[in-house]
Amino acid sequence: MSLDPALAADHAAGLEDLPCTLADLRAAYADGITPRAVMTALLARLADIDDPGIFIHLEVAQTLLAQADALGAFDPARPLWGVPFAVKDNIDVAGMPTSAGCEAFTRYPQTDAFAVARLREAGAIPIGKTNLDQFATGLVGTRTPHPVPRNALDPAIVPGGSSSGSAVVVAHGVVPFALGTDTAGSGRVPAALNGIVGLKPTLGAVSAGGVVPACRTLDTISVFARNVEDAHAVCAVMAGYDAADAYARPLRMAPPPAPLPAPRIAVPDHASLRFFGDSLQAESFSATLETLRRRGAEITPIDFGPFHDVAQMLYDGAWVAERYSVIAELMESEPEAIHPVTREVIGKARGMSALDAFRGIYRLAELRRHCVQLMADFDYLVVPSIPRFYSCADLAADPITPNSNLGTYTNFVNLLDLCALTVPVAPREDGRPGSVTLIGRAGADGRLATEASRLTRAVAGIAAPAMPAEPADDEMAIAVCGAHMAGLPLNGQLLELGGRFLHEARTAPCYGFHALAGGPPARPGLVRRESGGHAIALEIWALPQTAIGALLAQIPAPLGLGRIALEDGSFVTGFLCESAGLAGAQDISGFGGWRGYLASRQAGDAARA
Amino acid sequence: MSLDPALAADHAAGLEDLPCTLADLRAAYADGITPRAVMTALLARLADIDDPGIFIHLEVAQTLLAQADALGAFDPARPLWGVPFAVKDNIDVAGMPTSAGCEAFTRYPQTDAFAVARLREAGAIPIGKTNLDQFATGLVGTRTPHPVPRNALDPAIVPGGSSSGSAVVVAHGVVPFALGTDTAGSGRVPAALNGIVGLKPTLGAVSAGGVVPACRTLDTISVFARNVEDAHAVCAVMAGYDAADAYARPLRMAPPPAPLPAPRIAVPDHASLRFFGDSLQAESFSATLETLRRRGAEITPIDFGPFHDVAQMLYDGAWVAERYSVIAELMESEPEAIHPVTREVIGKARGMSALDAFRGIYRLAELRRHCVQLMADFDYLVVPSIPRFYSCADLAADPITPNSNLGTYTNFVNLLDLCALTVPVAPREDGRPGSVTLIGRAGADGRLATEASRLTRAVAGIAAPAMPAEPADDEMAIAVCGAHMAGLPLNGQLLELGGRFLHEARTAPCYGFHALAGGPPARPGLVRRESGGHAIALEIWALPQTAIGALLAQIPAPLGLGRIALEDGSFVTGFLCESAGLAGAQDISGFGGWRGYLASRQAGDAARA
Repeated sequence: MSLDPALAADHAAGLEDLPCTLADLRAAYADGITPRAVMTALLARLADIDDPGIFIHLEVAQTLLAQADALGAFDPARPLWGVPFAVKDNIDVAGMPTSAGCEAFTRYPQTDAFAVARLREAGAIPIGKTNLDQFATGLVGTRTPHPVPRNALDPAIVPGGSSSGSAVVVAHGVVPFALGTDTAGSGRVPAALNGIVGLKPTLGAVSAGGVVPACRTLDTISVFARNVEDAHAVCAVMAGYDAADAYARPLRMAPPPAPLPAPRIAVPDHASLRFFGDSLQAESFSATLETLRRRGAEITPIDFGPFHDVAQMLYDGAWVAERYSVIAELMESEPEAIHPVTREVIGKARGMSALDAFRGIYRLAELRRHCVQLMADFDYLVVPSIPRFYSCADLAADPITPNSNLGTYTNFVNLLDLCALTVPVAPREDGRPGSVTLIGRAGADGRLATEASRLTRAVAGIAAPAMPAEPADDEMAIAVCGAHMAGLPLNGQLLELGGRFLHEARTAPCYGFHALAGGPPARPGLVRRESGGHAIALEIWALPQTAIGALLAQIPAPLGLGRIALEDGSFVTGFLCESAGLAGAQDISGFGGWRGYLASRQAGDAARA
Repeated sequence: MSLDPALAADHAAGLEDLPCTLADLRAAYADGITPRAVMTALLARLADIDDPGIFIHLEVAQTLLAQADALGAFDPARPLWGVPFAVKDNIDVAGMPTSAGCEAFTRYPQTDAFAVARLREAGAIPIGKTNLDQFATGLVGTRTPHPVPRNALDPAIVPGGSSSGSAVVVAHGVVPFALGTDTAGSGRVPAALNGIVGLKPTLGAVSAGGVVPACRTLDTISVFARNVEDAHAVCAVMAGYDAADAYARPLRMAPPPAPLPAPRIAVPDHASLRFFGDSLQAESFSATLETLRRRGAEITPIDFGPFHDVAQMLYDGAWVAERYSVIAELMESEPEAIHPVTREVIGKARGMSALDAFRGIYRLAELRRHCVQLMADFDYLVVPSIPRFYSCADLAADPITPNSNLGTYTNFVNLLDLCALTVPVAPREDGRPGSVTLIGRAGADGRLATEASRLTRAVAGIAAPAMPAEPADDEMAIAVCGAHMAGLPLNGQLLELGGRFLHEARTAPCYGFHALAGGPPARPGLVRRESGGHAIALEIWALPQTAIGALLAQIPAPLGLGRIALEDGSFVTGFLCESAGLAGAQDISGFGGWRGYLASRQAGDAARA
């Protein structure tokens, strides 16, 4: 079973028996491996790792095996069928305690968090609740009353937090993904420290229902995985509007678009970069930018001052009062129940006034406007995921400063309502994992996934698949299958509207294709069938998005524009036909396309002539 | 010169010489009247009124006349050419002091507020700065160190505030419009008390640049005028994205759409209505609803509890700290500089913590979600503008309670990010002005203007003009049949793209209509049938043709845009569904449309509850 190539170098031995990507696991199930076998191997692997810090609560083996068995026969229609996953212990899983790393705070939920329920519905199995910086307050992983999880790559360095256990268990290859949460960077910093992918979706895309809040206005569930595709796929399953969550937004986790041929990337300029003395981290970041440049990216250094200013506000500003709101009663009645460092950090909120809160909110609004303007000309930002590494010994000596420094490139993201994706890049000279984070505007989750996936492939030396020509940002791809194709009677409509040919394509094999009655011009009708369909030849054209209305205005019934499934599983907008418009039409599906049909007709005409 | 007919009854004598609507003034200029003549008449009128409470600063006559002369020849291309207007004294006008009603706070701006600059550019002339409840904190108009402006209709009752002077000066017919601001209802309550129109636009539509904040997250400039058309026209001139204002939004103040034939209006149910003993106000409100009903509106009483709960938060909750943030330094150093009532109200903020602020913000988010859901099925709300009248004597006896009560139907609007339009209706039996307020979702300013204009005409017994409901040359008509319909979950997509409602319609009786599997949001699929079809309810919207591509990009399979046959035999572009996408769908053709189906489902849900 092969590892994701971008990561294979970092993870040598012992994983052969346990598929650690969704694709590998799915292939194993398709080959007849059972969920019971996977669960058994997983538990054995956990025993080998022997890290009592990873899980606060691990489901008993018997229950897990029973759940595995209960799945029955492999059901490829369920996207996460038989996929075991771990859940950070501030997210509810029915039947398991939720402690947020604080025993006195423990609750016993009877229902899954909204997101967990969606994963379970897709066939995934939660195996336990992972350790964290208590109340998700920290980026180090050491602020826990339980044993600190060991960094999966080097036990001397901190595991990162707050989602420490979830990151470590994925880095060990025990589960293909795990849930974290992210307010300041808890879904990204531990990914960087353990050499894996950490996806922080746009705020509100995934419901916060059943999650212990850190800062309720800034929290989101996040995903750790071994590759970008898996992280995005898991996020797409979890995402969905939850009217019961006052902070949910009706966002669509759209499928990743085609890569940008020459992405415009902003990076912190020289004066804004902070590595706190870690020159290897600086070199690693430079090398990654060089890789991006070689692949066509246009890299522009910008003043990161306003982003750093925002980052500073998260713990120095009034948002600490959001954390305090979660534990205020406990902290006043049982202060010793709370980790001393956590108590110190959150206790600052007691001195903060409503005046401080609103002045902070105003200042953030101003900085946000400034940052939005700085980002306006770019497709996304790329930053080092962490400025440097810290050892457990560093944290023992000073539990605050290293933690603050680790948030240098993460703390501002949620305050600015951005989305982010942390990905491993080439290891540093000292063997420690390289990592950068792509940051995009709210809703750009799909764009980041595409670009991050391309970056990890570039780093691993994997050629990007031969890039088909793609529409630009202000264009829209339109699939045509008849008289609008190049050189045919209506092609002029596309050219007049500024259309340009991109490439040929074929539909998924689920369409009927019909020569419609009427004309001239002769027109075909493409109709999706519930069964017995064909793959039909298409041409993909790019049109200025603003011209689509003018095109549509020229399309008569029974034709229209809808979504066409392609043979690679993606969708494109294109010409479809109403089923009711097929009266008097001839089924020409067997020709595989309009040109094939026209050629046969010409041949027939010639024969008759 | 004729008055606006809806208002003529309330204002009898003395205005003949001074045009008090934009149309009348424009007609006068077209007839050769000069701005100097208007300015002279205006100053004479002010002298007649002899109310030293209206203006804190009135520009000297010589300057005003010089500005009038400087306009030169009538320029019909400038929409506000020669229009004098008054400005609330918390909005900067270059060369005039800005005091917000507090001498110690006075500043001397060298530049106009963003909105004032736009009005000046359009040809309007600011004549002075009007009195207000100090720091815009109050709804009564009596919380000022200056003489209290006299209510224009009855000096015994309060003028209303905080935009007291601006409302009074418009009610007297001195200027066709005046600027106020609105945080709790300061742009609406004084309009109701003086029998004029008060428009509170969507937050962020008009820049707050150059405005002394009250609650910066909730403030907006507002407009007082004699009729709805003028208020909307002035607002359209002022509106415009100001990147320098961190709270500005890129909203388009679109031209008002055609009226809804049967608007679905929510009103507070019997148990939620509060008149504090003023039975004539209750009767006036009932009579207005009856007028609306006669004009085809469908009126639905709803539980207003959550709206009242939100209203309560404005002064009892942490938002008072926003007001404190403006004057904290002055209040601590020179407490006596501040009006004693204002000091008492705002002083409460000193005891509020950041914890209080964030808990308030959470509670508001939850209530907002609840209120949004309550509003989802309606085109807009209609409420009494004020629950009752209060006399100046009432306020002298108790400066707090009457003020709180006056905000019953206004305080929640800005906290919920709604827009509102206060309009005069038939006078009450005792001759006092009747008034209701229409309240819509953010961005629905145009919709409210249309509906409010129709209401004032209905009240005045004027037939609504036959409104064209056709797309403009650069628009395209789009038929929607499901979640994109007015008020339903995806309607925002149309509004964001600049869509405007045209009219309702029905398909030819040849369609099947299906509730598709999946969601949320729930979506229907409209499919033409070869036989046995139904007529299905549609809404026809106009979209900028250049926005059709952006709409199409948001439409997932199995939906698309094609040509729909209407019952009158014509065709319109609209949403169609692929037949192959009906797997798992429920045939709901019998309901005749999506709203019919939703209503039946709700009835079903209610029955189960």
